[in-house]
Amino acid sequence: MRMYDIITKKRNGEELTKEEIRFFVEGYTKGEIPDYQVSALMMAIYFQKMNMKETSELTMAMVESGEIIDLSKIEGIKVDKHSTGGVGDTTTLILGPMVAAVGVPVAKMSGRGLGHTGGTLDKLEAFPGFSIDMPIEKFINNVNDKKIAIAGQTANLAPADKKLYALRDVTGTVDNMSLIAGSIMSKKIASGADAIVLDIKTGSGAFMKDEDSAFELAKEMVDIGTHVGRNTMGVITDMDQPLGFAVGNALEVIEAIDTLKGHGPEDLTELCLTLGSHMLVLGGKANSSEEAREILKEGLKSGKALAKLKELVEAQGGDGRFVEDQELFPKPSIIEPVLAKEDGYIKSIKADDIGIAALVLGAGRETKESEIDLSVGIMLHKKIGDFVKKGEAIATIYANDDSKRVQSEEKILKAYSIVKEKVEKKPLIKGIVTKDGIKKF
Amino acid sequence: MRMYDIITKKRNGEELTKEEIRFFVEGYTKGEIPDYQVSALMMAIYFQKMNMKETSELTMAMVESGEIIDLSKIEGIKVDKHSTGGVGDTTTLILGPMVAAVGVPVAKMSGRGLGHTGGTLDKLEAFPGFSIDMPIEKFINNVNDKKIAIAGQTANLAPADKKLYALRDVTGTVDNMSLIAGSIMSKKIASGADAIVLDIKTGSGAFMKDEDSAFELAKEMVDIGTHVGRNTMGVITDMDQPLGFAVGNALEVIEAIDTLKGHGPEDLTELCLTLGSHMLVLGGKANSSEEAREILKEGLKSGKALAKLKELVEAQGGDGRFVEDQELFPKPSIIEPVLAKEDGYIKSIKADDIGIAALVLGAGRETKESEIDLSVGIMLHKKIGDFVKKGEAIATIYANDDSKRVQSEEKILKAYSIVKEKVEKKPLIKGIVTKDGIKKF
Repeated sequence: MRMYDIITKKRNGEELTKEEIRFFVEGYTKGEIPDYQVSALMMAIYFQKMNMKETSELTMAMVESGEIIDLSKIEGIKVDKHSTGGVGDTTTLILGPMVAAVGVPVAKMSGRGLGHTGGTLDKLEAFPGFSIDMPIEKFINNVNDKKIAIAGQTANLAPADKKLYALRDVTGTVDNMSLIAGSIMSKKIASGADAIVLDIKTGSGAFMKDEDSAFELAKEMVDIGTHVGRNTMGVITDMDQPLGFAVGNALEVIEAIDTLKGHGPEDLTELCLTLGSHMLVLGGKANSSEEAREILKEGLKSGKALAKLKELVEAQGGDGRFVEDQELFPKPSIIEPVLAKEDGYIKSIKADDIGIAALVLGAGRETKESEIDLSVGIMLHKKIGDFVKKGEAIATIYANDDSKRVQSEEKILKAYSIVKEKVEKKPLIKGIVTKDGIKKF
Repeated sequence: MRMYDIITKKRNGEELTKEEIRFFVEGYTKGEIPDYQVSALMMAIYFQKMNMKETSELTMAMVESGEIIDLSKIEGIKVDKHSTGGVGDTTTLILGPMVAAVGVPVAKMSGRGLGHTGGTLDKLEAFPGFSIDMPIEKFINNVNDKKIAIAGQTANLAPADKKLYALRDVTGTVDNMSLIAGSIMSKKIASGADAIVLDIKTGSGAFMKDEDSAFELAKEMVDIGTHVGRNTMGVITDMDQPLGFAVGNALEVIEAIDTLKGHGPEDLTELCLTLGSHMLVLGGKANSSEEAREILKEGLKSGKALAKLKELVEAQGGDGRFVEDQELFPKPSIIEPVLAKEDGYIKSIKADDIGIAALVLGAGRETKESEIDLSVGIMLHKKIGDFVKKGEAIATIYANDDSKRVQSEEKILKAYSIVKEKVEKKPLIKGIVTKDGIKKF
């Protein structure tokens, strides 16, 4: 078998066989096939596409290029959740305790990554003493005992995907649905999930700017999951403005606690109930998403969900008092409002720009080496459709450096667009995708 | 400027600017842009094509990536000829003396290359003492004095093309008309030609197997030449069977001498008269190809063309007596006929396979290090449309090793297809392409 023949076959629009896909994924991972042949193949795939059979083969070849986490010793159906990422997204911190509290095992491997704010792991470290490092046996025992554990991703998961993604990133071959979907799914499958709920975000703050592409990506991922025997479904959600009000690390943790107490932001609560209810259905804890939603609401109301967060924090060495007393979280030296320059309705909030306004304050990492400042961030007070008066606060900045605050304020004001005419609020949940098809709301 | 943006721009079907094309050609030649980005761009070009402006810019960027031969000290219009290559093609050895004899300067830089038989340089070395190494001043003086000089290509011509071609060759991105045409034209332009006559071959023994592609390639090359101010035209010629009768080095030199004497094979003579007449027109020695053809015929008839070959050989240190006495050329130890196995008409002769039958005997190079045996080769006695009787010789093998002769004979018999029904001879010249358009015969 020759890589040259695989390139020209795909270039000519033919379907690659399982053997051909394995040959190039394995050869590339081992360093036997050079970058320049793989980038040519990626560009050929960009133009000629891959069908579901090829996409599933690619996904599984990437899964099998590295370690595969064995979660078989955890009782029950392991349901994982994956979000395509956005701004101010604290979902995992809420959803984990919420579903664990009602009996669905949550065995979560998380990364740190680069971004506007830290990853789930960084946020959890706002609880002093909290550790994400533990042997796999303890991880499994914790899930069996407490129904939840969150660990750092130490395993060498899907190294082929890592290498391929880095190459695609510099050769203009990221934008292909099969490759994007295969990349995400390979990591989820290697993490040992039995079933997967996907949160595919769309809008100005999302990777998928337009709704049609988001549905297309969701369909592709659900089809891969189904094809390789993982019960998978996707929810398409709005990211045309930041989710919730908080953008920052301690601020988002506090917002998560508020939500678990039952008085979090409406959109964040709704998203967690929606994703959580699908997790319960896939996990076999409810027969319908309506039934599941009632179970979850009961968990919030009874205080079980909040108690589960405290249990998680303490089980991993963290200080549980922070869950009860939010005044304990670190506070910045500067807390200043951002005032509206005119009367009007909020037409749009560029989520990406709000993210950068938080990054500027030190809430996220610009490079792998950056230190995150847990105390800084932004609280939004106005969201799309809200009315604001001139001089009223649209947001509050939490900063430790006044020149950074000024930069951040400028970006926040630019991110908001205010108009005279009334603006309709947008629905948060745009549709769902299951193996049976697409349903748009 | 970033290579990433150039890749995505072309991937999205947009036209690249002169600056963008120069940026990647220069960056790649200097090793500043990696192979994997260039191969992705080449694949994007494969799918999205380049227009004539882009193709011309690419060609000139490749020309300017290395040395450009300055032939301005040679009087008159320097007309170069380029053939896309075939089997048994002795054209340069005949055409050079033919046009030089009537006053068109021939300043030829030739390569050795790999192939079924040696290149023009190898064939010239069949004249003992002949040297292709000379300083550029002597080369220019020889052309001014004798109207002809043939030198080895020592200059670093179009290194960008060399590097790009090597990459395309292993990444499935050779088959794009703009890239093929630009590659050929960059070397011709860097060689210092004022005007260019192209011989684009089509058929089983050619790079362009089908006629439409050959016309398309010719059009692309003529357009590039025109666009960059080089008077260029192309002749599309048949390579569905070997040209002439001889395939081998000494055998082809002898055939060239015969042709210069006026009794060469009909097809070879016709091709040389056609290409030569266009060279005379572009060189300003005749107003029409009809007039030019008469001038060339007179040159052959008067013996001037043959005398010019002798002059060339002697001017470069070779033994001129070989031109007069062909018995002096090296002879192999085995000369055996290949006999027809049945009666019938020759339907086709796979030119490629005849080439391999000659290579097997030692007439060409399989690797750069191979030694060429000048004495071996094949003389064909029957061409398409000819009638042959069972037991009659269709070819003669000239060999120095009997087991190689047996292998070669097998390949020759397989290359010939003999049928009962009468077969029409095919026209040699299929059309011409000028800046004004395509004319098919």
